[in-house]
Amino acid sequence: MPPPPGPRTFASDNWSGVHPEVLAALAAVNGGHAPAYGADAVTEEAVARLRQEFGPDADVYLTFNGTGANVVGLQSLLRPHEAVLCAAGAHIDVDECGAPERFLGSKLVTVAARDGKLTTEGLEAAWVGAGDEHHVQARVVSVTQSTEVGTCYSVGELVTLADWAHQRGMLLHLDGARLANAAASLGVGLGAFGQDVGVDVLSFGGTKNGALGAEAVIAFRPEVQTGLRYIRKQSMQLASKMRFASAQFVALLTDGLWLRNAAHANAMARRLADGAAAVPGVRLAYPVQANGVFAALPPAASDALREHHPFYVWDEPAGIVRWMTSFDTTEGDVDGFVALLAEVMGRTG
Amino acid sequence: MPPPPGPRTFASDNWSGVHPEVLAALAAVNGGHAPAYGADAVTEEAVARLRQEFGPDADVYLTFNGTGANVVGLQSLLRPHEAVLCAAGAHIDVDECGAPERFLGSKLVTVAARDGKLTTEGLEAAWVGAGDEHHVQARVVSVTQSTEVGTCYSVGELVTLADWAHQRGMLLHLDGARLANAAASLGVGLGAFGQDVGVDVLSFGGTKNGALGAEAVIAFRPEVQTGLRYIRKQSMQLASKMRFASAQFVALLTDGLWLRNAAHANAMARRLADGAAAVPGVRLAYPVQANGVFAALPPAASDALREHHPFYVWDEPAGIVRWMTSFDTTEGDVDGFVALLAEVMGRTG
Amino acid sequence: MPPPPGPRTFASDNWSGVHPEVLAALAAVNGGHAPAYGADAVTEEAVARLRQEFGPDADVYLTFNGTGANVVGLQSLLRPHEAVLCAAGAHIDVDECGAPERFLGSKLVTVAARDGKLTTEGLEAAWVGAGDEHHVQARVVSVTQSTEVGTCYSVGELVTLADWAHQRGMLLHLDGARLANAAASLGVGLGAFGQDVGVDVLSFGGTKNGALGAEAVIAFRPEVQTGLRYIRKQSMQLASKMRFASAQFVALLTDGLWLRNAAHANAMARRLADGAAAVPGVRLAYPVQANGVFAALPPAASDALREHHPFYVWDEPAGIVRWMTSFDTTEGDVDGFVALLAEVMGRTG
Amino acid sequence: MPPPPGPRTFASDNWSGVHPEVLAALAAVNGGHAPAYGADAVTEEAVARLRQEFGPDADVYLTFNGTGANVVGLQSLLRPHEAVLCAAGAHIDVDECGAPERFLGSKLVTVAARDGKLTTEGLEAAWVGAGDEHHVQARVVSVTQSTEVGTCYSVGELVTLADWAHQRGMLLHLDGARLANAAASLGVGLGAFGQDVGVDVLSFGGTKNGALGAEAVIAFRPEVQTGLRYIRKQSMQLASKMRFASAQFVALLTDGLWLRNAAHANAMARRLADGAAAVPGVRLAYPVQANGVFAALPPAASDALREHHPFYVWDEPAGIVRWMTSFDTTEGDVDGFVALLAEVMGRTG
Repeated sequence: MPPPPGPRTFASDNWSGVHPEVLAALAAVNGGHAPAYGADAVTEEAVARLRQEFGPDADVYLTFNGTGANVVGLQSLLRPHEAVLCAAGAHIDVDECGAPERFLGSKLVTVAARDGKLTTEGLEAAWVGAGDEHHVQARVVSVTQSTEVGTCYSVGELVTLADWAHQRGMLLHLDGARLANAAASLGVGLGAFGQDVGVDVLSFGGTKNGALGAEAVIAFRPEVQTGLRYIRKQSMQLASKMRFASAQFVALLTDGLWLRNAAHANAMARRLADGAAAVPGVRLAYPVQANGVFAALPPAASDALREHHPFYVWDEPAGIVRWMTSFDTTEGDVDGFVALLAEVMGRTG
Repeated sequence: MPPPPGPRTFASDNWSGVHPEVLAALAAVNGGHAPAYGADAVTEEAVARLRQEFGPDADVYLTFNGTGANVVGLQSLLRPHEAVLCAAGAHIDVDECGAPERFLGSKLVTVAARDGKLTTEGLEAAWVGAGDEHHVQARVVSVTQSTEVGTCYSVGELVTLADWAHQRGMLLHLDGARLANAAASLGVGLGAFGQDVGVDVLSFGGTKNGALGAEAVIAFRPEVQTGLRYIRKQSMQLASKMRFASAQFVALLTDGLWLRNAAHANAMARRLADGAAAVPGVRLAYPVQANGVFAALPPAASDALREHHPFYVWDEPAGIVRWMTSFDTTEGDVDGFVALLAEVMGRTG
Repeated sequence: MPPPPGPRTFASDNWSGVHPEVLAALAAVNGGHAPAYGADAVTEEAVARLRQEFGPDADVYLTFNGTGANVVGLQSLLRPHEAVLCAAGAHIDVDECGAPERFLGSKLVTVAARDGKLTTEGLEAAWVGAGDEHHVQARVVSVTQSTEVGTCYSVGELVTLADWAHQRGMLLHLDGARLANAAASLGVGLGAFGQDVGVDVLSFGGTKNGALGAEAVIAFRPEVQTGLRYIRKQSMQLASKMRFASAQFVALLTDGLWLRNAAHANAMARRLADGAAAVPGVRLAYPVQANGVFAALPPAASDALREHHPFYVWDEPAGIVRWMTSFDTTEGDVDGFVALLAEVMGRTG
Repeated sequence: MPPPPGPRTFASDNWSGVHPEVLAALAAVNGGHAPAYGADAVTEEAVARLRQEFGPDADVYLTFNGTGANVVGLQSLLRPHEAVLCAAGAHIDVDECGAPERFLGSKLVTVAARDGKLTTEGLEAAWVGAGDEHHVQARVVSVTQSTEVGTCYSVGELVTLADWAHQRGMLLHLDGARLANAAASLGVGLGAFGQDVGVDVLSFGGTKNGALGAEAVIAFRPEVQTGLRYIRKQSMQLASKMRFASAQFVALLTDGLWLRNAAHANAMARRLADGAAAVPGVRLAYPVQANGVFAALPPAASDALREHHPFYVWDEPAGIVRWMTSFDTTEGDVDGFVALLAEVMGRTG
């Protein structure tokens, strides 16, 4: 039945399959009956392990996908007349088909970003109309870690943003679809992006880290996040056979699999960035701090490369393309791609 | 890591794990890269197999769970001022935490049901206010097959309801979370509940049929279901590593696994029903036509039984309990449970 | 330009025009400029007068219409996974084209009512699924005063319902589209239905009481009704030339106009009820406690009457019709109608 | 009761009261009973007169306010996964407290504007992601006529935008809160902005033109605007005593009152612009084509002026203020204000 697996690409970290240890965990928890909807022992174990990372007070809700995790988490923080301040180009703004507006009923206000990252200057400029009933009221600042362009907020930068938000009565949401990559990059634990830096709710992504499909909403402020259990269910994000979602997180949090996967993907991105930057005519568009490489190269070269390797053109007018690495990217994959890049650049340059 | 699998129960068909053939399919499609979000060969195969069942014009959208499938499908048929007519007690009405109202913006109008099934008499009584701008406008009739109380609509009954709806400018939606059980029970193919009987959109459930977690929205009327791709994404039901959802359906549709699983579960329910009905003091509350057995018994007996076996009390005032069978229920499970039931009834009766 | 005014009817209290004192108030506040959106002196005066009635802590938000007032008020009390318990037949349930579900995102759970009024027994039966994430969570009990069938809750009955709600962590909403009629009927002030009895938010209707079109949301629990200013604006219920809405309330609250209008309408309903009840073959369907008379009479008589006088058939199967009186109904109107009723009953009986 | 009318200002055209002919119309249609919700003779007359302006096929729905008219009209054109392209700074984007996102469920995509007006170049740049399920799908272009900065689209410019939209399967919505001012400015009829130029749905504002509070949704494409009656009711925009809203439009459309009011306000803005532009140090920020004057002047001068005359600072960083004229602005008001401006500029300059 199954087609033979396709070759590895740099298209996206969700073109990868499932890490073998995750697949093994699915098999290991199969057989027999377990209470549905999360009242099972595997889920208990997953929650315990997530609390080891994010702190004993972390409130944990597994969801199906990243859009679901973001929307569920944000719903717990916002009412419809309140708005989200987020970077122009944030996943919640441009890649979720309007799910946040649809389900929050709230406006997303975009903020100018620098290397994909919010700054307090940008926030100040975008924060208007406070107290004016004709305007939506900014209530949540949402950041992405690592960002959509492969950069990372330092811990200090997150603290600054959290302080800015909290001083104005706002809350901080973090979209961590690639949180593992940021932690590996910065050499800190996953929990470094949680309560300690002032994040109020975050999405922690398992899927791009080697899972089949599992994300977690982690909430730290019980007084504002009431109702998350109901919000998850009403948002169509509650799995009946939850043990299989939980097993994925247990596997990722066993023997540091999340870190092994993320560190490897990051290293492959570093290798790719270094190789590409050495090719005449190729310029890196953003600092390479996680598992994404953004490069500017001539359209003809981009087109020629994509005949062999699928990847996304990120910014067509600027000629910037995106190359993502994953837990299963090999050094050979990278070196072969760089060699081809050099060959194509030489031919088309 | 994983706790040992728990004993099999009659609590719910989603307390079961994953059928080994489904698990094998997940492993088989792993490795290598595949385009995300459904542009892969496994999904192509799953869609092709679903079209073999539901007809070449069936439009197929896989989703994560049953609530998601129902809400996505209904969204394609309704605008917010239009209403859904459904049975009192329908899953969309009482078990989805208000997701339909939340995401459709529409009112659900409940209709008196007989053995869990809608009738045209009930619909006539509930269908009020047509053309009156103060009232929501009934637009969709939603049925569940097999029903929440383990009964099945005959093909003729569905045709009658579809005709009733279509003659009034309405559409017919079918929640088929247990469609396989109905098909096995009636001895017809899955497609018997689709376009031929006049169903406009249906949810076809894989999860309770032995999958890990995969459901399908099947749509038959392209002129009214525009936008389903966007609706699925915006409804947070689009999987990135779609090949693994698709593989589950490929497995269920290979060598008749869906039918083997459903027929077995139905047979176990039949065996359980026959056994239970023979116990003095136990009365079956509904015809047993799929994989659910609803029985009236004294609360003391129910409580004593549940000390050993978890199951749900369906209607507390009426003393009705629900016992569900699954693909992995064994004859021994049933016979042991019936023996215990007889023992408990003798002791508490 | 204007057609000659039509004859007075018993169709609805919103078929009436505007009381002359209200019309005079509109003219009196015209001329010159005033700050828009409610920052004007007339609005200040209206709020002050409403606070004289409802208490110094009452928070006041004028809206355009009754549906708007109900939806704005309820939004301040509810989140989408929370539900409203209301009487079957409540205006919010059947006469607002689904606006509550659409804008709250919440389910309305209907409760069996007695003479249009909720009881704690009915509420107990409808209050299910608390703490179960698959179910919406009942959060608000909504009552209508006077009810849709012309009855009134006593002050004690409201206290009982408020206590029931508050003891379970719920809130009490009151739809007072005809609050003036209830106050006149019970011989109490408007404020008798507010904070003292435990109502958390109410809608106070001016329109049916002789205004052109003005309603007020009155809120008593600042800790739960945060954001009402924004909710009103976002709900499209904030008038720019607010002074004209406010002037209507100032007029109604000057020299007891609200009470004069309501008491007169009630007296006309009483007169009509007494006259009708004396006609052989006519039976009153509900106690007449406000300005509505509901009578059961043969369809042939109803049809014959409506050739001359427009009114609504309330319950077609039961043969119940609705006759509403207004501030401008005269004794002659009533006596003429009763005479015609007697004539028609004699002819068709 | 009423406070003495305040002095006339340049704060906003909705700080004005009601034109005497409109007030007289309210009195003229009072008395007697009329069917509620628009089934009355005055509404019939208003619709007939609006059809004389906008064409015999125009579908007319009166609403309470401009936000309501915009949201009702847009709802008839959009589904939640579809987006609105509008100018950055459009009323629907920044002055309706997020009502469009809340009630449409749709994203508003802002487009760079020139003098407040959309261009096809701007639209091309903002129109991304067509056919990509991860992106909202642009479906409606919304323009404001006259714009928020007092400019007008020419008829030809509207035709160009309509063609651009229709060629791409989109629709054109027009927010005409100040449509009368645009018509007066361009010397065309109101209908010049409707079906002939390709507008699909528009909001026609009565309130700022001298009404008490009445707006109209005018729809031209019956095949896409289905359900507007229900949408209006569900959107809480259906007046019960509709004859009084209708009477306002009848008055505005009698003896050219709409044109007299708009032309006068425009002339006062012209006079004010000419006077202000002649004051050294004052610069007009936008062409003055309707009833708004936007001027750049030093903050100290702006602050000094506002001690005497309330008006809004439009763009604080740029030092631009907004002065609006109305039907009741006098030449003396303008000349006095210009004299004060000159005095203040001389003093603070």
